[in-house]
Amino acid sequence: MLAAAYEELDRDSFAALTLDRLARRSGVHVSTIRRRWRTVEGVVVELLAERGSTLPTPDTGDFRRDLTQLTQAIADFNNALRNRNVLQGLLAAAAHDPRVEEIVRAAFVRRIEEVTLIARQAVERGEIPEDTDPREVIAALAAPLYYRVLILRGSIDERLVHTTVETTYQAARSGVFVHKGDREG
Amino acid sequence: MLAAAYEELDRDSFAALTLDRLARRSGVHVSTIRRRWRTVEGVVVELLAERGSTLPTPDTGDFRRDLTQLTQAIADFNNALRNRNVLQGLLAAAAHDPRVEEIVRAAFVRRIEEVTLIARQAVERGEIPEDTDPREVIAALAAPLYYRVLILRGSIDERLVHTTVETTYQAARSGVFVHKGDREG
Repeated sequence: MLAAAYEELDRDSFAALTLDRLARRSGVHVSTIRRRWRTVEGVVVELLAERGSTLPTPDTGDFRRDLTQLTQAIADFNNALRNRNVLQGLLAAAAHDPRVEEIVRAAFVRRIEEVTLIARQAVERGEIPEDTDPREVIAALAAPLYYRVLILRGSIDERLVHTTVETTYQAARSGVFVHKGDREG
Repeated sequence: MLAAAYEELDRDSFAALTLDRLARRSGVHVSTIRRRWRTVEGVVVELLAERGSTLPTPDTGDFRRDLTQLTQAIADFNNALRNRNVLQGLLAAAAHDPRVEEIVRAAFVRRIEEVTLIARQAVERGEIPEDTDPREVIAALAAPLYYRVLILRGSIDERLVHTTVETTYQAARSGVFVHKGDREG
């Protein structure tokens, strides 16, 4: 089913995707799809979670190299047209439906949490200060890439990968993402 | 007309906005609205451009203070529910209509261009290196704020304003956004 949805999104935009089309392509009855996923958005959110999670978390033993590999992986993922279709379609759905909004938010929070390993290991190796908030590091890395895709509506080029890695690396090294005990975290 | 649209968006989401409702509230005939703006998206894009441009470009004589004021202004703007409704509605429309996509992109590029003054003056004062790309500085500042709103679906708090300003300031100071002659810019 998820593979069928992915194929459909390679041919056409999210707007054109319907449960009937998914049923036709996958051979699964439409009522079965509706029971399990409820809506097209439900299918696509699971698809996004599945494909997103197949991106391995880099673990090279070097913080800057880990950041570079992660940034490149996010860039490659979002530069594929069908993945961009999924993302933009989901955000469009989220604007109209609070349940989709919550699903999207939760999917990204979960994904960020997974790759915080990079920042936690950098702390352990002494490359960045203790009390660094690992989620802030990953959000800082991801933000310029999604800004390019969603706001500037462009693809993520080599230059942006470079500036994003350097910006995040330097900020993390110099303690911008350190939470003191007397602050929020 | 634009004021009427803004009032409607304070009461209800973008999804609920129609040309008929705009006509009723503004007293302008629906055919007149259609002739000038064509669609609800057309009205809202002009609204976004108008309200966005009323945010003054900070000019305090100090780069970090300018960045802080601009970040705070973007935060205040996006923390207002109706502005977030406008933004999310436009991105939803952009996912389905390439003309809206182009309008959104152009509006943000124009807005970025306006506030590049901050970076250009910082270069002139010698606070950041020559050959700094001023658009990259502004995009780096804006990205974490839109990531918070669009992806993490949260509001922009004081902590995010702080980390965003510091991250951008340090990166700009250390030359991350410098374009060498032998590169793209």
